[in-house]
Amino acid sequence: MSTSADIGVTGLAVMGSNLARNLARNGNTVAVHNRTPAKTRSLVEDFGDEGAFVPAESPQELVASLKRPRRLITMVKAGEATDAVIGEFAPLLEEGDVVVDGGNAHFADTRRRERELRERGIHFVGAGISGGEEGALRGPSIMPGGSAEAYASLAPMLESIAAEAPDGAPCTTHVGTDGAGHFVKMVHNGIEYADMQLIGEAFHLLRDVAGYTPEQIADVFGTWNRGRLDSYLMEISAQVLTHTDAETGAPFVDAVADSAEQKGTGRWTVQTALELGVPVSGIAEAVFARSLSGHGVLRAASSGLPGPRAEAMESDAAGRFADQIEQALYASKLVSYAQGWHMMRAGAQEYDWDIDLGAVAAIWRGGCIIRAAFLDRVRAAYAADPGLTTLLADEGFSRELGRAQGDWRAVVATATRHGVPVPGFSAALSYYDTLRAGRLPAALTQAQRDFFGAHTYRRVDREGVFHTRWGGDRGEERAD
Amino acid sequence: MSTSADIGVTGLAVMGSNLARNLARNGNTVAVHNRTPAKTRSLVEDFGDEGAFVPAESPQELVASLKRPRRLITMVKAGEATDAVIGEFAPLLEEGDVVVDGGNAHFADTRRRERELRERGIHFVGAGISGGEEGALRGPSIMPGGSAEAYASLAPMLESIAAEAPDGAPCTTHVGTDGAGHFVKMVHNGIEYADMQLIGEAFHLLRDVAGYTPEQIADVFGTWNRGRLDSYLMEISAQVLTHTDAETGAPFVDAVADSAEQKGTGRWTVQTALELGVPVSGIAEAVFARSLSGHGVLRAASSGLPGPRAEAMESDAAGRFADQIEQALYASKLVSYAQGWHMMRAGAQEYDWDIDLGAVAAIWRGGCIIRAAFLDRVRAAYAADPGLTTLLADEGFSRELGRAQGDWRAVVATATRHGVPVPGFSAALSYYDTLRAGRLPAALTQAQRDFFGAHTYRRVDREGVFHTRWGGDRGEERAD
Repeated sequence: MSTSADIGVTGLAVMGSNLARNLARNGNTVAVHNRTPAKTRSLVEDFGDEGAFVPAESPQELVASLKRPRRLITMVKAGEATDAVIGEFAPLLEEGDVVVDGGNAHFADTRRRERELRERGIHFVGAGISGGEEGALRGPSIMPGGSAEAYASLAPMLESIAAEAPDGAPCTTHVGTDGAGHFVKMVHNGIEYADMQLIGEAFHLLRDVAGYTPEQIADVFGTWNRGRLDSYLMEISAQVLTHTDAETGAPFVDAVADSAEQKGTGRWTVQTALELGVPVSGIAEAVFARSLSGHGVLRAASSGLPGPRAEAMESDAAGRFADQIEQALYASKLVSYAQGWHMMRAGAQEYDWDIDLGAVAAIWRGGCIIRAAFLDRVRAAYAADPGLTTLLADEGFSRELGRAQGDWRAVVATATRHGVPVPGFSAALSYYDTLRAGRLPAALTQAQRDFFGAHTYRRVDREGVFHTRWGGDRGEERAD
Repeated sequence: MSTSADIGVTGLAVMGSNLARNLARNGNTVAVHNRTPAKTRSLVEDFGDEGAFVPAESPQELVASLKRPRRLITMVKAGEATDAVIGEFAPLLEEGDVVVDGGNAHFADTRRRERELRERGIHFVGAGISGGEEGALRGPSIMPGGSAEAYASLAPMLESIAAEAPDGAPCTTHVGTDGAGHFVKMVHNGIEYADMQLIGEAFHLLRDVAGYTPEQIADVFGTWNRGRLDSYLMEISAQVLTHTDAETGAPFVDAVADSAEQKGTGRWTVQTALELGVPVSGIAEAVFARSLSGHGVLRAASSGLPGPRAEAMESDAAGRFADQIEQALYASKLVSYAQGWHMMRAGAQEYDWDIDLGAVAAIWRGGCIIRAAFLDRVRAAYAADPGLTTLLADEGFSRELGRAQGDWRAVVATATRHGVPVPGFSAALSYYDTLRAGRLPAALTQAQRDFFGAHTYRRVDREGVFHTRWGGDRGEERAD
């Protein structure tokens, strides 16, 4: 065995094996290893002709096969399995070597692991990888966090396997230090939850209020997919909706149980946003909607709750309504992206990451689940103003929101009257209206807090912190 | 010094000193201690005539003054200060002694502390205490979690100082083991956030859409407070709204900055609910609304976002609208309580607590911030059916929701058209409509997940787990 491999991959389940193949296909010599060697062997047997693989039977063999500085990607389950693999490999590595975690780790774990390995002189890169199995094989969006030095050492390889954006740029960049990559991947997934929920609401309204068939809705989605809503998720939604269930001959979507599962990154996003004080209502409602859909007992107990009488919509009205839904969907999507970017800005500030917010949009234009034409607009907005406080305030987006808001309101009002739940559309609209409100009822909230807990308040007309003696003479006193 | 005290209190800031006075006023001999002895002395000087106090200058003195088994309440800041006090006192205590933490601890910390002290034979009781400073002095709602033995030893004292419900019952009960008391207190606070947000939205609509003055809104709230919305928070809202700012002569609420603060228990509630898979959208929107109100830079950047043209409401219409808001407020409140109770049921299951869900409602009828006539209805609902899946399905509540839903929808639609944010009202309505929906778009969501990530799905017509080969022949295969 020679020390000939450019990079090693350990953990050869679908994601790891596809990533290894992607690396090999793109001219990299890839050492491959799996806990059970049978998988390593079958990878090389089945796909050995795709490129240069160096099979390794043990961690020692894998490490021995790598050029220095050694570059090793672990593709194992997030959590204990990742710690176990790191614990196994770290003693075999030397100063300057680079370990990449390509799993879905929580960014806090990545920060801890980076710190621990840094103390031993080993670079640790937490790399978010989006695009699913197909993406791993044909070009994912890769979000690496770690030292600039480690990124420089990995860049040629990562850029060779990443998806290409429509302008040809590779969908990877140095996101920031330590946990920045996994943080940004987490926010990506949160936005993905929101996107899927909003598409679900559009589907629900087109089906139940406009009275469209899944086939007709696929047509509508197809049309939208040629406009500003052009995106992978819109495209696959249309594909799902045109699919016929072979068994029943009915639309496939009607054969599927209406209970959506989740693996946890949406929840992490909301929990972290709460920690950071960033409102991510669109993502939260999407997470809640998935949970609710799976609460069968609760739904059964509530199925008899009274709803409104359904009014039929005529076909002309349905066509106009579909156009309004496009506006509502677009505006709501814009709000979830604004919330996601707000969260990335806040995370960067809290954890001292130098995240280029436009570059994140740029590397999401291809490869990942939320890839969309729209993201080039986000990239451009931050290119024009890197200090942009919120996407909503970008001139172009703000103009579109102005044009959309009437229809957006009409859609929420119609859904409300028809009894179709639109938690995503309405949370987004509430966020929008809250932000633009000149005056919020938070003044009453804060006054209540002062009343029952002496929590004090500020005044509109001068600086300082004040308390009113509610239980006494109701005089006001300084409390700072 | 004799070992004469029934109970000890350490930590004599406002909450601790008021709780000590409450104990003394109700016939208990109370040993009092504070890190800086000056506070101990001034408590006894100022209020010594209210009852029997035993001042202690040191932890040793405090412990020496207590009857056995010793009962000691710590009233210090949650977090490290609590651990420090426990670390100081534990070595002085003996098997069978009882330590009560009356601070706002996170229930996970309480579980840890209970476990650690149990190993040393000491009972640890995490007691949620609600009612603010006034409550601590005149009768709070007390939510103790810990062993049944510890509760039995404390019960006479806790019952002597707790608030009385309208039927004369003391507002305390043994909530459950270890962290149950602090968990339930956390959910109480989450519900409090939601209640305050909903009242804020009602205020906002009455002000901006109905065109009422704060004084007129206080009248409306006063009327509501004599009906099914009778509650402490409604009462103090009316009081705040009638208050005139001495400095400007304007309504006080207009002088207060519209930025609401939070101390973290609302956030904990949502984070924990996400962990438990319980949708608490009403509480989440309330937490987000407070954050948003405080994001001054974001609000300033968004102030130019386009809104709808405001339509004036005539006074007849305004009166009808106010009635509709009462329905929307009541229905939304019912939803947040249903979410809170769902969370308590899920927490009890997860952490193996035998929580009597009706008893929790009973001890919130007095003393605490969310005390309300309504809670007796909740108590009765669980008394009638201890296994009630959701409050919404209770016959009486379900009937009221049926009567309210038309107006509730009208209010959300009107707010939406007028550009007044109602995140609480609309999240609650979405929850309601999601639960009663026969069929949710979650089927499309799950199909998308299968498409891009091979996450599989279930079918409506038979058992099993399935996957469609989306990238291939689109045939279906079993995946279980």
